[in-house]
Amino acid sequence: MAENIVIIGAVALGPKVACRAKRLKPDANILMLDQQELISYGGCGIPYLISGDVSDPDQLRETSFHILRDVKFFKDCKGVNVLLNTRAVAIDRSRKKVLVEDLKDGSKKEISYDKLVIATGSKPRKLNIPGEDLPGVVAISSLKDAIQIREGLIKGAIGKVAIIGAGAIGLEMAEAFTEMWGIETYVIEIMDQILPGIVSYEMAKMAQHHMEKQGVKFFLNERVLSFEGKEKVERVVTDKRTLEVDLVITAIGVEPNSQLAKEAGLKVTEWGGIIVNEYMQTSDPDIYAGGDCVAIPNLVTGKLGYFPLGSLANRQGRVIGTNVVGGKAKFDGAVGSFVIKLFDLAVASTGLCPERAKREGFEAISAFVAQFDRAHFYPEKEMMFLELVVEKDSGRVLGLQGLGRSKDAVMGRISAVAGLLKHKVHVSEISNLELPYSPPFSSAMDILNAVANTAENILSGRAEVISLREFSEMWKQKENFLFLDCREWGNAKTYVEKYPEIWKNIPQGQLRYRIDEVPREKKVILICNTGVRSYEAQLILKEKGYNNTYNLQGGMAAVKEWGLEI
Amino acid sequence: MAENIVIIGAVALGPKVACRAKRLKPDANILMLDQQELISYGGCGIPYLISGDVSDPDQLRETSFHILRDVKFFKDCKGVNVLLNTRAVAIDRSRKKVLVEDLKDGSKKEISYDKLVIATGSKPRKLNIPGEDLPGVVAISSLKDAIQIREGLIKGAIGKVAIIGAGAIGLEMAEAFTEMWGIETYVIEIMDQILPGIVSYEMAKMAQHHMEKQGVKFFLNERVLSFEGKEKVERVVTDKRTLEVDLVITAIGVEPNSQLAKEAGLKVTEWGGIIVNEYMQTSDPDIYAGGDCVAIPNLVTGKLGYFPLGSLANRQGRVIGTNVVGGKAKFDGAVGSFVIKLFDLAVASTGLCPERAKREGFEAISAFVAQFDRAHFYPEKEMMFLELVVEKDSGRVLGLQGLGRSKDAVMGRISAVAGLLKHKVHVSEISNLELPYSPPFSSAMDILNAVANTAENILSGRAEVISLREFSEMWKQKENFLFLDCREWGNAKTYVEKYPEIWKNIPQGQLRYRIDEVPREKKVILICNTGVRSYEAQLILKEKGYNNTYNLQGGMAAVKEWGLEI
Repeated sequence: MAENIVIIGAVALGPKVACRAKRLKPDANILMLDQQELISYGGCGIPYLISGDVSDPDQLRETSFHILRDVKFFKDCKGVNVLLNTRAVAIDRSRKKVLVEDLKDGSKKEISYDKLVIATGSKPRKLNIPGEDLPGVVAISSLKDAIQIREGLIKGAIGKVAIIGAGAIGLEMAEAFTEMWGIETYVIEIMDQILPGIVSYEMAKMAQHHMEKQGVKFFLNERVLSFEGKEKVERVVTDKRTLEVDLVITAIGVEPNSQLAKEAGLKVTEWGGIIVNEYMQTSDPDIYAGGDCVAIPNLVTGKLGYFPLGSLANRQGRVIGTNVVGGKAKFDGAVGSFVIKLFDLAVASTGLCPERAKREGFEAISAFVAQFDRAHFYPEKEMMFLELVVEKDSGRVLGLQGLGRSKDAVMGRISAVAGLLKHKVHVSEISNLELPYSPPFSSAMDILNAVANTAENILSGRAEVISLREFSEMWKQKENFLFLDCREWGNAKTYVEKYPEIWKNIPQGQLRYRIDEVPREKKVILICNTGVRSYEAQLILKEKGYNNTYNLQGGMAAVKEWGLEI
Repeated sequence: MAENIVIIGAVALGPKVACRAKRLKPDANILMLDQQELISYGGCGIPYLISGDVSDPDQLRETSFHILRDVKFFKDCKGVNVLLNTRAVAIDRSRKKVLVEDLKDGSKKEISYDKLVIATGSKPRKLNIPGEDLPGVVAISSLKDAIQIREGLIKGAIGKVAIIGAGAIGLEMAEAFTEMWGIETYVIEIMDQILPGIVSYEMAKMAQHHMEKQGVKFFLNERVLSFEGKEKVERVVTDKRTLEVDLVITAIGVEPNSQLAKEAGLKVTEWGGIIVNEYMQTSDPDIYAGGDCVAIPNLVTGKLGYFPLGSLANRQGRVIGTNVVGGKAKFDGAVGSFVIKLFDLAVASTGLCPERAKREGFEAISAFVAQFDRAHFYPEKEMMFLELVVEKDSGRVLGLQGLGRSKDAVMGRISAVAGLLKHKVHVSEISNLELPYSPPFSSAMDILNAVANTAENILSGRAEVISLREFSEMWKQKENFLFLDCREWGNAKTYVEKYPEIWKNIPQGQLRYRIDEVPREKKVILICNTGVRSYEAQLILKEKGYNNTYNLQGGMAAVKEWGLEI
């Protein structure tokens, strides 16, 4: 008798499981159910639907060859049965049945399974503050929400938007509102940086500066206390101000939708992630789970983590699809790869950022480098910034973050390291990493090699560096330091004339002959355009016994990108 | 007493060694010598100098901050001494001295070394045919050659160019001549494809088709017999034709410049590559060598290989720089990563292409996939083509090639795999590879994951595929096959109407209901836009006992890109 495979949830992971399983075992009976009317859509495309880049909601539900992924599609093309508007109420594991409710008429029935897949996804985190239920306060958690907001935009009913949370979705929404619709957009974030836990403070500042130039207003270190309004939201009240708004998007993250699994007695973490083994089986071997509702190993920290990403849901879906029909595919965990487009910038990351590494208990250094993304003699090029996080004693690479205007090039550098993290590679492996090289694409010594070289120099104690954040703090008491500008006079002139007491210019090529001009009693901050010549200067000074020098990582290129006024 | 480090050769590896060593050991005496007047230039930029993208030869000799890397630069900025126009004549290993000749006055002297570095690079391979020494037959092997050709172009003295060899340099030169100068450009190649040994026949055909559309003329499978002319070259004579030309560029590859090493009794391979260990030491531990003159391990095949690439020279240079001052850095080998811009296309590769894998004795399959390079609902996207080569029994990934119009995106996919090859990863690791995902950058199931999934399906025997090359052969006897078009009628119409006897349309979604229309006695070639729906169709047919189906990898997208007229 053909096996019954029942899948609860039909957005990302569910359809992947269904189609893969059916391909591998064409005689299996596969039933997928979902409480929504709209299924199998590209949820990650919602910000682009809001912005208008995606012109029709159906585009998020179409295959690449423009066939709508509806019930008929799954039946005809995929051989998979789908029940819409159907909620799974309970799982009876001993009898291997799922109790489901038809949300249209309230009727209930039981469905038998041989293998069950839980693909219940996530739900938006709540702020739990007054006014959160007012109309106009939306956590965009489904395509339906997005379609409604879009209709409001088209009608011109929205002039001011507050976005709560400066994570990926919040920032993508901020771009969508600002760029396409010219809407006054506020982003309110409780932490001291955007993209907290994803990129370093420095990169976050750079990205923020870029978004501010496009008109987005940020309120960091700020807690939202309540939403106010009569019939709909009219004001956001924070611990520092009140903002008039027409719409509020809450985007403070998601949490696993695991109530059903928990009630069925399946093991979940204390934060609600369903626990699965490497075959994506729950604590009941006939029940699989994947996507936004599960906990999976973080391959960098070794601990269980939460990675609610459509990309991982798809990969896990394929693994589950293989296994529910008797295969033995494995999914061993994730490292947390990330990329976002913010207007003209790409910001990307894999593994741990410096702050996160610290929080996870690693003693780590981070190397920050600014360099052209291709051969410097090639006419089309952009400055790229990379930050590599390396464990101190072992030299193990823990993560890489990048930012730049050649978007695919930033993504490419991060991709080059993403797959290596789980192999626990030493930083020297990135120093020698063999990226394809040709002047229109990369440098002979690519920026990715350069950031690893820099990390090695920091680990060995040769390079003594300060971060941009440290520089910005020092600048507040600039009279205590000497800023030694190692560039040519043309670059240094402005600063020397502006700050004659503290800003001194000795081009790096002259330093060997003018070394006595450098004081030994003051802390000397070494500066050039990117940090390369100033590193060279540091070594020359150290050879002559100077132990009071600090090289600014990323140099003036980083200062400029961050928007620090000096 | 400070150590004497002598470096023979000052183009790519030499300067890297010198600067790194000096940084690590500021009191070392470092002397670099070169027979040329121009040193430390970006040789890989020469095609862009010819094309005019790089407007001034000095740009190839400048740092990113526009300082010319001349003798004064090395002295002042780097603390390194340089002797120009100086040829190393012999190495006396027992006395640790190099005999050098001043090429300006012919005088000779001996220079003592504690550590010696051989960075003598490569020389162009010769055709050894009549007329090779005629003026106007040039193997661009130095910046000086390039400058001369450029002067000829500016004067308008060149109307027709023949390039011998369709490797990377030949093709870059072909683009340079065609695009910028509108010169009639012929590329003559003895093999049956361009980029032989680097990308598959299929990808080579696609790239060739693209270049032909830009006006480059290719003559493959053709042997050059002689060059003819009175005072300068006027004709190229091949085994198939005679071409009138004003200039000939020979670009049939390079070979190690290792005569000096050989005469000093150092071990070299039979093809002339200086043998070095993982510290880049030659058979004499006080003599190091690197760059285009050495043999290094191919980390895919495990054999010694030849990788004359500026990128590797730089990485090896840093390793040698560390080791000549007492460090223990390692360089374990290369996988052969490659990228080239050909007009609007990027073609990239890492590891082995199918043909090369076979030649190296691997039994391998290759999966070929066409897919958009980012979310298909995102408005800006391009078709990308990837080909993954996997060892049959072990499932080990041997190589990846890519082609597409979003150039950095192609490079990024190749980079993502480049570093993994030496870890001998299984194809399932690429299936689950965690690239950063966001719709403007990638797909939830990225093309890189997709090509690995396809490879797994081929390895398991589920997917039975034909390559574009096989398809093109079958098409010559098309009456023997049924071409089953699994797309919607709108796409299939043209072909059904043109070839009613052999081209049949059953959209994949209708196949379950119309399966009896498919004949069992004829070979059925399954076709869709990219190979995805036709794979689905294949599984439906196989379930019903059809064992006569073959899925065209890459589908009509690949047919179109290759320029096959059907």
